Amino acid sequence: MTARTDFGSHYLVDLSQCDPDKIARVDGVRAIFLRAAEQSKARIVGELFHQFEPAGVSGVLLIEESHFSVHTWPEDSFVGVDIFTCGEEMDAPIAIDALKRAFSARVVEVKVLVRGQLGEDPWMPTPRKR
Amino acid sequence: MTARTDFGSHYLVDLSQCDPDKIARVDGVRAIFLRAAEQSKARIVGELFHQFEPAGVSGVLLIEESHFSVHTWPEDSFVGVDIFTCGEEMDAPIAIDALKRAFSARVVEVKVLVRGQLGEDPWMPTPRKR
Repeated sequence: MTARTDFGSHYLVDLSQCDPDKIARVDGVRAIFLRAAEQSKARIVGELFHQFEPAGVSGVLLIEESHFSVHTWPEDSFVGVDIFTCGEEMDAPIAIDALKRAFSARVVEVKVLVRGQLGEDPWMPTPRKR
Repeated sequence: MTARTDFGSHYLVDLSQCDPDKIARVDGVRAIFLRAAEQSKARIVGELFHQFEPAGVSGVLLIEESHFSVHTWPEDSFVGVDIFTCGEEMDAPIAIDALKRAFSARVVEVKVLVRGQLGEDPWMPTPRKR
């Protein structure tokens, strides 16, 4: 029997030169994020958001297909998103495009990795720092 | 002014040939995951876990430094973890080693990407499928 080697696609998404006012508070970021996830046909099973002071948001959606996460740095106009999907129906690029527009990001960079095929050398723990 | 280009390290971690019994239920996975995060000196600000039936877990910890996520496939003895840390104090490799041992993973593969430097071509939305 051959071991399964495809556990879905993991999108890392850096959104730069965003509108700082749109990424400062949980209320706004949560609404945008939920809408983007729904547009991509993700099936949400749970959500968790955290407000940093004076400004900045972390949040995650657990979905049937794995997860969405968001972290915002309003002082740098930067948003880091990841979308891990192991479903066939879900369309992550739709969510990425929706987030780009909603955060008014001028630059978006994306890397996609197939989970189960990271292909690095086997892990050796690094020495402890202390 | 030069724009900031380092928003932390994002570790993608594939753990293969795990003990299926250790990755089937929220209770066990949550305890292992919280302990690994604490050992790495992550500062936890929130947690969310979901039980899939008949077996399988998704979970996330929001931390001051960004997040931990875990998704388990007991039927394939596979666990997908990601750790996004923008903190100086936190030591993600300690958590990875703790998870390897706790899930009895025989193979661990890791990729680390610096957020803010994904370096792909600027994002162009793909045509909608329908």
